Amino acid sequence: MTFRVRPLDFPELRQDPLSGKWAVIATDRASRPGSDLFRESETPLNFCPFCEGCEHFTTPEILASRNPGTPADGPGWRVRLFGNLYAAVRPGTASPIGSAIAPGVLAAGAHDVIAECAHHEQSLARVSLDNFRDLIRIWRDRLRMHRESRRYPFALVFKNSGTGAGASVEHSHSQILAMPVIPTNILHELANSRLWYAQHGSCIGCDTLRNELAASTRIVAANERTVAHGVWASCWPFEMSLWPRDHQSHFEAIGEADIDSLAELLKDVLGRLDRKLNNPAYNLVLHTAPLDGPTMPSYHWHLKILPRVTQPAGFEWGTGCHINPVAPEQAAEYLREG
Amino acid sequence: MTFRVRPLDFPELRQDPLSGKWAVIATDRASRPGSDLFRESETPLNFCPFCEGCEHFTTPEILASRNPGTPADGPGWRVRLFGNLYAAVRPGTASPIGSAIAPGVLAAGAHDVIAECAHHEQSLARVSLDNFRDLIRIWRDRLRMHRESRRYPFALVFKNSGTGAGASVEHSHSQILAMPVIPTNILHELANSRLWYAQHGSCIGCDTLRNELAASTRIVAANERTVAHGVWASCWPFEMSLWPRDHQSHFEAIGEADIDSLAELLKDVLGRLDRKLNNPAYNLVLHTAPLDGPTMPSYHWHLKILPRVTQPAGFEWGTGCHINPVAPEQAAEYLREG
Repeated sequence: MTFRVRPLDFPELRQDPLSGKWAVIATDRASRPGSDLFRESETPLNFCPFCEGCEHFTTPEILASRNPGTPADGPGWRVRLFGNLYAAVRPGTASPIGSAIAPGVLAAGAHDVIAECAHHEQSLARVSLDNFRDLIRIWRDRLRMHRESRRYPFALVFKNSGTGAGASVEHSHSQILAMPVIPTNILHELANSRLWYAQHGSCIGCDTLRNELAASTRIVAANERTVAHGVWASCWPFEMSLWPRDHQSHFEAIGEADIDSLAELLKDVLGRLDRKLNNPAYNLVLHTAPLDGPTMPSYHWHLKILPRVTQPAGFEWGTGCHINPVAPEQAAEYLREG
Repeated sequence: MTFRVRPLDFPELRQDPLSGKWAVIATDRASRPGSDLFRESETPLNFCPFCEGCEHFTTPEILASRNPGTPADGPGWRVRLFGNLYAAVRPGTASPIGSAIAPGVLAAGAHDVIAECAHHEQSLARVSLDNFRDLIRIWRDRLRMHRESRRYPFALVFKNSGTGAGASVEHSHSQILAMPVIPTNILHELANSRLWYAQHGSCIGCDTLRNELAASTRIVAANERTVAHGVWASCWPFEMSLWPRDHQSHFEAIGEADIDSLAELLKDVLGRLDRKLNNPAYNLVLHTAPLDGPTMPSYHWHLKILPRVTQPAGFEWGTGCHINPVAPEQAAEYLREG
């Protein structure tokens, strides 16, 4: 497929004024390996660019956990962050584009990849607990860098595991995308949590945790500082949220004890998914308060695990409401057994 | 997969108090043919239950366009509406469930299927213009029935075309799901359109149409009463919206001239998609004002066509913002040529 209209010089973040939703129009992404659109032109790689020893195939290293004395962009790392070669956003200034009825800004931002282990492994659940700790620290450190740069009000940490979840490289990896606007999902959570705080005088996340622990039917696993539970209004079968027990609005402020606890619990629940659902595709996303704001009493960061075992269709895309054939109480019991 | 926790007696509409989003927890849908979850237990049908002559395999007919004198639930129809055998919602009362931190209602509603032609045809674009007109009238008439029943404030007309868009039956069909709450996507559109009206004194849909016709770069096709254009902030490559040129908030008030015009334009643009993108999977959704409210100067009904040629992943599910590798100006030019 070729277009006569030429690609955009710079990716654009366009907003639909009716839905409020943003879309990144990134016309040079169509040519990336694994692109859904242009499969015919795809030449599969015969090696893995995310494995140790292939560092020269990636963009330069930005952060890594490394053996002492090993230089950047060579072997000797456990977890390694570098710029996405097919970034959806680019460094720059988010200048306004369009008009009131067709508004937007240039899609200025940063789009990173984090290789989660040095050896070729597809499942994050199978990497070592040390790697989990390093991974969480690298998520934290990259968010801190973005916070300190004051360039972007929000960054999403996310992971696509399996082709059914949108992964185009099989080596276990996550991504961080820093963007010049706060996306609608986060805006709605912030608005609803502020409203809850005004009405109840407490954090909606703390209250959710209290409710889940009291009900106990949706708890999948928990340890001293972190809880994983099936979500009351799960959009996906086996959907889970992980929360720190202590109130924390910003993930980048996470301390060492919470890193240890989250590492253990995340490895535990991803292992349960692999064993009990036979390595399902899943997405993992981190919802945390905006990078340009202070500590908030109303918002509580959490990790969401979205197993991609059902196919959203017209009803879901039209309404935002998902039809889910598995109750989270069924899902939690099934995963607890594992 | 078997669960010890028993299925729900009645499907539940649960709300996530943090995101505001609803989910239908419908535990008896897991056993339907084509369910993603339990593929191992699936026995494919060796006939098509939506074809003429198989009326006894469906639930009783509710609406149909029929040859004069042919009785319901037998041959002689062109377009036929009946209850979904695997309905996500059920007739009943939307009694509250849960609590403030885990709220919901019983998922009372109606979930219909509309067979769009009597012969076995997978692509709606290939059915006759007469069938398109009958289909639009049946959408209208079913919405009118729901409006007059005063039971449900909203109903979504939608279509899943192709397995990649969530279709579990290949015979061309659409669906209507009436529900006891207004879902978030519609609430956000209503709020944004009211705000636009307050700020600009005009309908956001009328202004979008004016802007698209003036710019012309995203117009795909248009006729006397209806316009189809690529969406400025397209979430999907080749996403299109179809609007009546005259201001209309409620689809169920559509007149015969607009039915003719919409039938022609919808058949035209779906044919372009089939020809130019090689029969892509797509969803079609109708956004219209709530069934329990009066005519609105601020809201404008529209049909959205969402080609499922990309795979939403963690970034999209985490933010609500889509990464789209095709600019709508490129898409519109490509489709105009077809």
